[in-house]
Amino acid sequence: MKNILQKQSDTIKFLCADMVQRANSGHPGAPMGLSDVITVLSKHLKHNPENPKWINRDRLVFSWGHISSLIYSFLHLTWYDISLDDLKNFRQLWSKTPGHPEYKEVPWIEITTWPLGQWIANAVWFSMSSKYAKNLSSELWDHKVICFCGDWDLQEWISYEACSLAWKQKLDNLIMIYDSNNITIEWDTDLAWDENIEQRFISQNWNVITIDWHNFEEIDKALILWKISDRPFLIIAKTKIGKWSVNKEGSASTHWSPLWEEEIKLSKIKAWFDPEKSFYIDDEVLKEFRIKRPVSEIKIWSNETSLKELLNPDFSKIIWPDFSDIDSIATRSSNWQILNSISKAIPWFIWWSADLSPSNKTQLIWEWIFPEWKNIYFWIREHAMWAIVNAMNLYWLFRVFSATFFVFSDYLKPSARIAALAWIPQIFIWTHDSIWVWEDWPTHQPIEHLTQFIALPNFYNFRPATAFENIECFKKILKLESPSSLILSRQNLVNYKYSPIIWSVENWAYLFKKSLNPQITLLASWSELELIINSAKILEESGIWINIISMPCFDLLEEQSPEYINSIFDKNTKIIWVEAARWLELYKYCDEVISMNTFWASWKATDLFEKFGFTVENVVERVELFVIN
Amino acid sequence: MKNILQKQSDTIKFLCADMVQRANSGHPGAPMGLSDVITVLSKHLKHNPENPKWINRDRLVFSWGHISSLIYSFLHLTWYDISLDDLKNFRQLWSKTPGHPEYKEVPWIEITTWPLGQWIANAVWFSMSSKYAKNLSSELWDHKVICFCGDWDLQEWISYEACSLAWKQKLDNLIMIYDSNNITIEWDTDLAWDENIEQRFISQNWNVITIDWHNFEEIDKALILWKISDRPFLIIAKTKIGKWSVNKEGSASTHWSPLWEEEIKLSKIKAWFDPEKSFYIDDEVLKEFRIKRPVSEIKIWSNETSLKELLNPDFSKIIWPDFSDIDSIATRSSNWQILNSISKAIPWFIWWSADLSPSNKTQLIWEWIFPEWKNIYFWIREHAMWAIVNAMNLYWLFRVFSATFFVFSDYLKPSARIAALAWIPQIFIWTHDSIWVWEDWPTHQPIEHLTQFIALPNFYNFRPATAFENIECFKKILKLESPSSLILSRQNLVNYKYSPIIWSVENWAYLFKKSLNPQITLLASWSELELIINSAKILEESGIWINIISMPCFDLLEEQSPEYINSIFDKNTKIIWVEAARWLELYKYCDEVISMNTFWASWKATDLFEKFGFTVENVVERVELFVIN
Repeated sequence: MKNILQKQSDTIKFLCADMVQRANSGHPGAPMGLSDVITVLSKHLKHNPENPKWINRDRLVFSWGHISSLIYSFLHLTWYDISLDDLKNFRQLWSKTPGHPEYKEVPWIEITTWPLGQWIANAVWFSMSSKYAKNLSSELWDHKVICFCGDWDLQEWISYEACSLAWKQKLDNLIMIYDSNNITIEWDTDLAWDENIEQRFISQNWNVITIDWHNFEEIDKALILWKISDRPFLIIAKTKIGKWSVNKEGSASTHWSPLWEEEIKLSKIKAWFDPEKSFYIDDEVLKEFRIKRPVSEIKIWSNETSLKELLNPDFSKIIWPDFSDIDSIATRSSNWQILNSISKAIPWFIWWSADLSPSNKTQLIWEWIFPEWKNIYFWIREHAMWAIVNAMNLYWLFRVFSATFFVFSDYLKPSARIAALAWIPQIFIWTHDSIWVWEDWPTHQPIEHLTQFIALPNFYNFRPATAFENIECFKKILKLESPSSLILSRQNLVNYKYSPIIWSVENWAYLFKKSLNPQITLLASWSELELIINSAKILEESGIWINIISMPCFDLLEEQSPEYINSIFDKNTKIIWVEAARWLELYKYCDEVISMNTFWASWKATDLFEKFGFTVENVVERVELFVIN
Repeated sequence: MKNILQKQSDTIKFLCADMVQRANSGHPGAPMGLSDVITVLSKHLKHNPENPKWINRDRLVFSWGHISSLIYSFLHLTWYDISLDDLKNFRQLWSKTPGHPEYKEVPWIEITTWPLGQWIANAVWFSMSSKYAKNLSSELWDHKVICFCGDWDLQEWISYEACSLAWKQKLDNLIMIYDSNNITIEWDTDLAWDENIEQRFISQNWNVITIDWHNFEEIDKALILWKISDRPFLIIAKTKIGKWSVNKEGSASTHWSPLWEEEIKLSKIKAWFDPEKSFYIDDEVLKEFRIKRPVSEIKIWSNETSLKELLNPDFSKIIWPDFSDIDSIATRSSNWQILNSISKAIPWFIWWSADLSPSNKTQLIWEWIFPEWKNIYFWIREHAMWAIVNAMNLYWLFRVFSATFFVFSDYLKPSARIAALAWIPQIFIWTHDSIWVWEDWPTHQPIEHLTQFIALPNFYNFRPATAFENIECFKKILKLESPSSLILSRQNLVNYKYSPIIWSVENWAYLFKKSLNPQITLLASWSELELIINSAKILEESGIWINIISMPCFDLLEEQSPEYINSIFDKNTKIIWVEAARWLELYKYCDEVISMNTFWASWKATDLFEKFGFTVENVVERVELFVIN
């Protein structure tokens, strides 16, 4: 007679095997290997099928798309809105159970399938969030965070960076369950990887326990130990992929292929299941999975004032800084004032930095260290940092901005891409744009990055020319449901006065100056606005009349109506864009682009601007040539 | 009476302090902290000031720009072509001693200043290279690799990924010297980082020793221990930044600012140096640094046949595969044949992979595991992998190609950027382009990446449409002195026959078909070539005559003469480009672009192509609309 735990676990196994078999594609191996631990874990979880978004739910993070059959089976068994028919429609067009579960579509799914390791960083944030929320709003905020990972995730550096922070943030409610099956696509993991994982995590101050994966009692004991642990907790287990398959247990083929009918039947017989029945769930098993667990604390949350403030930020409370008396200011500096104004008014506005805040100018000056306050330090671990910040929105309560040098945006591109495709409104502050970074080697000069992020769909890049534009950009950013970047200057920029009577930034490229009979339209953003304004002065002295356009956001210009675009781009003029960057995309709107095509050298910024032709003399000469031809 | 070691070390300290003082900017702190270890290390190094590029020299890797004063002092003292006057010209325009030493300009400098941690991966490659070279050419190949690192480098994940490989590759000739001074820009390292570094490296199977940094005898013993170690070796030492400065030792200000005259004088007095003398080198000290060490093996190297073959590859030996009977083939498959053809002929052609070779189709089929053979496995650690591969060219003997899915190029962008700005001819093989990757989530669909890498200066992206173009691309790549990428298809592409009489790929965008009175020019690369050819057939049935251009490399098209460009882009036609990617840059040459602006969903590739309008019907309709308007 099998005990009920074994029956529960085997039910999951064969649901998964049947789903993959019926779909004729999928990954039965890992789901079968993990069914034992999921079964025991289900006794320890606090969640609410009637309200999958219940705010104090345990966060369960398994991001691998290839265990989706396990996720769907588990959700069905634990009373979520996934029916047996949904399981039968696994991986079908428009079904509720596609190959990769999306967090917006599937209940109690915290994150969609990200690239390897990303979800470990997300789990760290979920845990950090709970600490901050608890501190801010209620002692009752006590959910746990459970994250699954495999060999692949621990090979990716992001796992190392993220786990390194977990102890420093005292994340005692975080557990990672490491399913190590030694299988790679090319070979056996040992060929290129033989770290001592236990030692690795101990060196990062975690508690670690190694257990027999298929012994229910050991799994249970480990989970109880975790609950009294004062540190983040790792369970290690060497598992067999395709567990309980008669002929294929431990075989890599169970990773990517159905077991096939005959093998499933044999395995069901071995487990005392009826080989002729598919998608079978014993009543006793179902009852056991669906035991209602107490969720009595729910009501308390909705009454809390501070929680309400978190959930419903009142942007009208922001007192924007007054820049009207400022003649010139670096946008990193105007932005610093703006950040602090927002932070004062909005409780969920949190700051992250990778050791560059004195340069980025982003530290919140009336704040202190997270989680009691809003400033989070993380030194130089960019990739994990931005993956962690992504999870902010998935936690639903916060909005976090983060900062680094623009050139290091390369290190976080994978996380920026996820923000874009998952509609995560992260705010990226990137300072030290272009070649204006003084004497560092070109390693520190972002030339191609603006084009790179403009190419990324659903990602808005703001590059204000003045402190006034900077404010307008941030007002827009706070309303966006997509990620955005603010690309800011190290150097002072002339703070041309913003006068809504004359011009309006609302359409994101606007006529800064309009001539009666223009021959030329000059466009720029950022520091190059001053350059074209000064060039226009010289040109108009020789009778060449100029329209000037300032464009703080190319991405939003792209969304304007054709009528608006035609109204600012005067077809009777030659249109010339001047930008100290690659700007390949500008040809869409311009006849000529004065931009950069090469790296060069470490040099004083002023010398570099001259070398690359970003001088009034050169712009005037190029325009005059254009007029002659 | 001070011993000679102390005098040597102090000489370095004050040379550095004097250089920074005279330049009025720079970083004296770390150089002063490191002078003791450099002094002892100099007794153990094998190098040749008369031939700084001597092939069996020890590789000394310190990439931080901020210790450049130490590097220059050391090079001067050990007889390299850096004079005392050069030291006095530190950080001046056009001097031999700029703020950041460049590997192409300064003798015995292996790498320029990269972003943090990159050089650790480079050092791993230098060590791996020596193993391969030794195996290939001579037992006498016995140099060591010495790499310096700081707290910052060990925070960056790349160090973790790279060091994880070191033991697996049995890199017993690698030592890393870890200068831990606990200083960050924002605060103290402990605030966000308290790993047990000793344990971390032991978990990666290194030998680790912790020593008193300022005890010459301990340093010497550690270096001797390393030489008999059978594993990669780490020396840890907590150091004082600005060591020996009377009032500023241990202070963060010594990182970024001169000590100033008065403090330097006080410190010189403390060290029994004459406070009134600057740039002072005692004869005894100079003599000690310049003791000639045996470099007798040099002559042997130049006589080796296999070494000659490595240094002078004969490309004419490559027998290119014959695709003339193939009607359709995925370019990842044609490329696989090409890779193996090259490998057979060229000994330095080595392969790397991050666990995707069955999909990328890149494994060298007549080869076995590195270092005895050419196949290197590295599982899923993209960033370190590509940084390691970058170092290949810096080692001078090899040329390595590496592979992953195109979408994961995000994970290696920082290394690709270094390859571009340092002229490293790495070959990036990127398969599974665009939305043709089947049912993975958009996480796996590279939409914006082509634009991203086209924006990167000095980086050539090849996107062949046929197996014939694929060969032409590789012929060009082997001649390039810049990095390049091959962007390849998962799906079969029609293998349109290449006929040099009708067209030539040499100019990288060529007329595939020319009509007598064309109204429209259609352009494409990759799979979209077939799409425009089929669309043109339909359009010509309705009397709309079409020119067709295939463009395997946008970057090289940009380098063609205006005459050539005008000859293929017929000004009397409307020019329409069709590409399943962002292609913002195409407006430079076209009137209309049919491309992609959004992410979408996981779906069958054929459905996605339809959804995004990459069908004959849609292209025909768009062209017809264009003709009407």
